[in-house]
Formats: sequence, C-alpha cells, structure tokens
Amino acid sequence: MSKSIFYHAGCSVCVSAEQDVLSFIPSHQIDIVHLGTDKSKVKEAKRAGVESFPALVLSNGSVLHINFGASIEDLK
Amino acid sequence: MSKSIFYHAGCSVCVSAEQDVLSFIPSHQIDIVHLGTDKSKVKEAKRAGVESFPALVLSNGSVLHINFGASIEDLK
Repeated sequence: MSKSIFYHAGCSVCVSAEQDVLSFIPSHQIDIVHLGTDKSKVKEAKRAGVESFPALVLSNGSVLHINFGASIEDLK
Repeated sequence: MSKSIFYHAGCSVCVSAEQDVLSFIPSHQIDIVHLGTDKSKVKEAKRAGVESFPALVLSNGSVLHINFGASIEDLK
C-alpha cells in the first residue's frame, strides 16, 4: 500500500490534527509535508486536490480536509 | 480503548468520507451514527463539539470535521 500524505503548514489547528491523525494511521504509513517550509510541494498538493490544510491525501487519492487551518491560496 | 464515533447525515460527502475513514479505522473501533435518522443523537454530537458533518469524534475527545457536508444547525 502506498503512503498517505498529511499536508500542513505549522498552524496550531494543523499540529493538533497531525497528532490525531497519527493516533489512527501508523507513522510509517504516512508522510508529513510542511507546506510552509517546503513550498515546492504546494503544486503537488494542489494537483492532488488540496484546497486548505490540514489535509490528508489517502493512497487511493481521496482528499480529506480536516478542520480548517488556512487556505492553500494563502501560501502563494 | 473506547470507540471513535463517525457522525454523518447521509449526504454524498458523508458517504464518501465514511468509506475513507473506514479504510484506516477498523469498523469494530468505530460507531457510525446517522444524525438524519437518529435525531436523538444530535444533542450528544453538539456536546462533543460537532459543528458540521461528516465529523469524526476520537476516543480522546478530539473532533475532526472532515470536508463539509452540512452544518449541524441544518438538522434542527
């Protein structure tokens, strides 16, 4: 199974959601991407359908926007 | 560990999110509550902090609002 990807940008909502997500997805099955410090990944996230973060992109391609930290547009 | 609860109201966003959630949380560790057909649970959901659905309430009390189907206010 390929990994899920958790996109965040360091906001408090993101940090809290990350801990919750890691409570049910083992850390070896998930990549954590900080879009604030790794802006090269912003395009990849948008292509996957991420509109806001934190967001969890599952290995099947589904995008789960979890709570709301900020819009991806704010990262430009 | 006590169970997580997935609250939904039968909307298409809810059904899709339910399948995604069940891909990483085993079904015996989660209760699925349909607030549209079981309105007695609406109060319980609000008390837990659910504002919209689909929403996943973890056993530690965290509330993850996943994508957006509808506001809980629409159920009144």
